[in-house]
Amino acid sequence: MTSPFLGEFLGTMTLIVLGDGVVAGALLKHSKGENAGWIAITAGWAFAVLAGVFVANATGSADAHINPAVTVAGAVSSGDFSKLATYIPAQMLGAFVGAVIVWLHYLPHWGATQDTGLKLACFCTGPAIRDAKANWLSEIIATFFLILTISALVTTTLGSAGAIPRGVAPYMVGMLVWGIGLSLGGTTGYAINPARDLGPRIAHAVLPIAGKGSSDWGYALIPVAGPVVGAVLAGLFVRLLGI
Amino acid sequence: MTSPFLGEFLGTMTLIVLGDGVVAGALLKHSKGENAGWIAITAGWAFAVLAGVFVANATGSADAHINPAVTVAGAVSSGDFSKLATYIPAQMLGAFVGAVIVWLHYLPHWGATQDTGLKLACFCTGPAIRDAKANWLSEIIATFFLILTISALVTTTLGSAGAIPRGVAPYMVGMLVWGIGLSLGGTTGYAINPARDLGPRIAHAVLPIAGKGSSDWGYALIPVAGPVVGAVLAGLFVRLLGI
Amino acid sequence: MTSPFLGEFLGTMTLIVLGDGVVAGALLKHSKGENAGWIAITAGWAFAVLAGVFVANATGSADAHINPAVTVAGAVSSGDFSKLATYIPAQMLGAFVGAVIVWLHYLPHWGATQDTGLKLACFCTGPAIRDAKANWLSEIIATFFLILTISALVTTTLGSAGAIPRGVAPYMVGMLVWGIGLSLGGTTGYAINPARDLGPRIAHAVLPIAGKGSSDWGYALIPVAGPVVGAVLAGLFVRLLGI
Amino acid sequence: MTSPFLGEFLGTMTLIVLGDGVVAGALLKHSKGENAGWIAITAGWAFAVLAGVFVANATGSADAHINPAVTVAGAVSSGDFSKLATYIPAQMLGAFVGAVIVWLHYLPHWGATQDTGLKLACFCTGPAIRDAKANWLSEIIATFFLILTISALVTTTLGSAGAIPRGVAPYMVGMLVWGIGLSLGGTTGYAINPARDLGPRIAHAVLPIAGKGSSDWGYALIPVAGPVVGAVLAGLFVRLLGI
Repeated sequence: MTSPFLGEFLGTMTLIVLGDGVVAGALLKHSKGENAGWIAITAGWAFAVLAGVFVANATGSADAHINPAVTVAGAVSSGDFSKLATYIPAQMLGAFVGAVIVWLHYLPHWGATQDTGLKLACFCTGPAIRDAKANWLSEIIATFFLILTISALVTTTLGSAGAIPRGVAPYMVGMLVWGIGLSLGGTTGYAINPARDLGPRIAHAVLPIAGKGSSDWGYALIPVAGPVVGAVLAGLFVRLLGI
Repeated sequence: MTSPFLGEFLGTMTLIVLGDGVVAGALLKHSKGENAGWIAITAGWAFAVLAGVFVANATGSADAHINPAVTVAGAVSSGDFSKLATYIPAQMLGAFVGAVIVWLHYLPHWGATQDTGLKLACFCTGPAIRDAKANWLSEIIATFFLILTISALVTTTLGSAGAIPRGVAPYMVGMLVWGIGLSLGGTTGYAINPARDLGPRIAHAVLPIAGKGSSDWGYALIPVAGPVVGAVLAGLFVRLLGI
Repeated sequence: MTSPFLGEFLGTMTLIVLGDGVVAGALLKHSKGENAGWIAITAGWAFAVLAGVFVANATGSADAHINPAVTVAGAVSSGDFSKLATYIPAQMLGAFVGAVIVWLHYLPHWGATQDTGLKLACFCTGPAIRDAKANWLSEIIATFFLILTISALVTTTLGSAGAIPRGVAPYMVGMLVWGIGLSLGGTTGYAINPARDLGPRIAHAVLPIAGKGSSDWGYALIPVAGPVVGAVLAGLFVRLLGI
Repeated sequence: MTSPFLGEFLGTMTLIVLGDGVVAGALLKHSKGENAGWIAITAGWAFAVLAGVFVANATGSADAHINPAVTVAGAVSSGDFSKLATYIPAQMLGAFVGAVIVWLHYLPHWGATQDTGLKLACFCTGPAIRDAKANWLSEIIATFFLILTISALVTTTLGSAGAIPRGVAPYMVGMLVWGIGLSLGGTTGYAINPARDLGPRIAHAVLPIAGKGSSDWGYALIPVAGPVVGAVLAGLFVRLLGI
């Protein structure tokens, strides 16, 4: 039953269940992880990537992109755009379903939490300082380094004898994402993945979340288009370098 | 002298010594780890899984389930239920003995701690918000993703050339459990393992713990049966996918 | 120039430079790591083990015990006591020199720190609750699980095809020590290594540390002899199991 | 297009983007990572090393030094000084460009942050207690152990059968740097890399950072020359040992 579509769908769903889940666990009232802090949130997203890549690999996507920005960068650097039409819808749908699962998992905590901003943050990103140009720049930079470092990892370790064992590569990607979150996430919350932001934002808009506020559609373009711009730039850079 | 029974017994015992141990270290009065927080508790459980799997592997259980939910999921997905009768009693007994060792290890700290709820939390789980339907759902969801991600890990990495080295797989399982704890543990404290909850709850009930309170038997069904339901669903899902 | 003596000496020295170093960094006044907390201290000791094992391996000790308790347990389980006379003096000397280096590294911070107990804690362990029987028991239990889990790691991963890569084993030992620290360190500060405690305690006694207090010799027997008892018991247990 | 110069340039640039980035994320006002603390800062630098080594490897530098101290130590221990003229300018330039990117990434946060010392700390190191002799000693000791442990890692794991997989070595170096940061970083903020300190300090001096203060040139020699002295001593020591 496995297929690339299913793999990208289930992998991205798992990414969001654990990724949005750690934010919910750290922000929602009465959660045992309340106030666990930045190290916990960034660690949780790292393990979410690890888990999502394993699930995507096992259920039909050998690529395990689970992120349209990675799919776009791969297309730009290789010149083959054929995967976009399959992967990106699967990723978006997976991210939406993942967010629904997080809503169900923390069901009694939404009503217990007063702050509507905290509730939105369990679904999608928002800027630390609202400044459109700076927020665009942050998403572009963070995504550029996501793609550059993953490309470097793949080039260094998967292409030759003495390579990294196959099951260890997802772990290394997770650790790189931990680093990018810790170092570059402070400004916009590091969407660096259009599906990670848009799918859960739609879920926030349509789900009957207790006491929810605005879905902040005014900001929604930046965490979708910023990562795409960063991915195109990184894809071109990787292609230029020939790595 | 090693055997599957001994392996599951010693592995689960080690899991609980380190798992309940980290909770005791973070919650009990005067502990050097007091207030170490959610990142420390979830990290401790991850290393507890790592250690427990190594011990189970070395002492006779090549499966190293150390969790009846994993055993049940494996039976459902494979159709072979023959291991349940050996593994589950070994896991329950190991969890009970592990909890006794934690009680001994922190002996003077029980009397020094006033809060009976904190003392119970060093043995078994309890809900952040007591809401039976939501708590059932949380344990089912968390266990479902535990089984799905471990199955994906095994499928991806152990079945072919270029696979993960054998000694690295327990580490990856530990990291997945760190992620599940960080992301899905905030609601019910992530039992996700019937033995992990019931064995130590029995130990809490029978041990002469200084100033102990209720063992909260009213909640005890959910962290035992919820993980079993989640494991059955995940086992069926894995079987359906054919991974 | 390398030799088993040199390897154990330099490996244990490195262990203490980084291990006592992280305690100093977390406790001494004006340190950039002041109040970094239990997760940082236990992480630092884990990386200290990782570094110490690499250094011991590279400079002549293929065993890389860097801990008399590990040497004793190996002797008990194998019946070969010939390494003790070489390894243990090297480990003790290395731990002493390592503590001297930590004193030099944090030189202006000793005078800046008022609390003499914090200064002693940068060298050797002390009990959270002073209760000799309970403290003995804690050191025995923690060391027993140190030896059991390391023995399980070695058995599982180093003895056959598909084994863990050689350079990854020190990392796994470090992670096990992180787990033991988080979970069992809250009571006595987990000496679990006679050299780790005695060598630096002697350094504390003889060095001209600004404003130092007592070296607490009344407690010094427990963190030396407790780990030896735990190691003997674990060595016998491992021998009995035949792992 | 790849070359050793490009590899050292891009690798060091990545190191500083993520390394200075995590400091900015933890110190700058309104950052989502504000007050994330020492464990987050040291973790961020560890992942910065991991990422930088992957990028350097993939873009032309098989050595992936990304640190003049490592280049100097390698020259001293091997007797071959030919790489210095290429590597060190590339590392310095990379560190400068990396700091410019961090400035751009956190653009609106500089004006929002009042404390000029915190802003400088996002670029280069400063002493916890200003004491030239002690600060020299700290940088020498920390760099000595950086080189010793990396040399031990390389000797132990890369030179023979059963060795560490190639892609795992950068991770181990990252973990060693995490340990050195946690344990020896409390005194001077562990420059341990002349490029890491000087390149960003120049960037701080020349960039139009909102409300910036002094670049503290009075301290600038120590984090450049201290690591060189430590590297020479460690290179000689490694050569003497023959590892």
